[in-house]
Amino acid sequence: MTEIERKFLVKSEAFKSDAYQKTRIIQGFLNTHPERTVRIRINGQKAFLTVKGKSSENGLSRFEWEKEIAVTEAENLLKLCEPGIIEKDRYLVSNENHIFEVDEFHGQNQGLIIAEIELKSEDDKFLKPHWLGVEVTGDIRYYNSQLSKKPYLNW
Amino acid sequence: MTEIERKFLVKSEAFKSDAYQKTRIIQGFLNTHPERTVRIRINGQKAFLTVKGKSSENGLSRFEWEKEIAVTEAENLLKLCEPGIIEKDRYLVSNENHIFEVDEFHGQNQGLIIAEIELKSEDDKFLKPHWLGVEVTGDIRYYNSQLSKKPYLNW
Repeated sequence: MTEIERKFLVKSEAFKSDAYQKTRIIQGFLNTHPERTVRIRINGQKAFLTVKGKSSENGLSRFEWEKEIAVTEAENLLKLCEPGIIEKDRYLVSNENHIFEVDEFHGQNQGLIIAEIELKSEDDKFLKPHWLGVEVTGDIRYYNSQLSKKPYLNW
Repeated sequence: MTEIERKFLVKSEAFKSDAYQKTRIIQGFLNTHPERTVRIRINGQKAFLTVKGKSSENGLSRFEWEKEIAVTEAENLLKLCEPGIIEKDRYLVSNENHIFEVDEFHGQNQGLIIAEIELKSEDDKFLKPHWLGVEVTGDIRYYNSQLSKKPYLNW
């Protein structure tokens, strides 16, 4: 129930030609408290409720618990969420044994592109593609929960 | 997904002899914001995640959505909840076509007993048992989410 992931800004749109999947994501938060966020997400034809805990000291690991729910339930729950619904396209890009999830944000976060990679351990190695920019792991401004309250266009 | 319920204080323990079921409940909140609470509850051998919206003007109806989860998942999620875990015994008492849920609180809410009845419509009639006290429907001090932050013994 704990995930280890590293997060990077993306320098160019070159990742798009390497992507093997693209999905529209709509999500909102019932709670954006950094110690316990509760997210509602519609991901293509599926929907999920996800609870995340506080990050570890180094920002690498975080408690995460997810439950699939019906899309119609998610639509009702999104109406209840805090203001600041996030819309983004998620691209999946293979990288040897790993997968990058690259999120291209729209609306109030237009212009922001973030790549995440999930690792097996905190010292797990991976290849850095040329489109990968500066690392922002642990920087809470880039948490989606924070982007919903303080969107990128207002920075 | 909207429930109509009325809530009353309880004057005596006489309801206990009428109860047909008693269950221990342990619950916490990931979020106690009155517009959108997220509750984790272990109810005997079952566990649930419940999202509730804001009450209507008259305090009678409220959006509610519930999902059963595993008890072990609930135990992990309770560790993440805000301080103020609530423990109580829930008694079920038949009342003609209705059922009273009577909660006897423990710990920081010791001494508080609340009865709730769920109704089919806002003008649905029901018999008032002799142990039923003053109505507190819509009084947010008696919401469990508020009792976890401002427990009865501190009033």
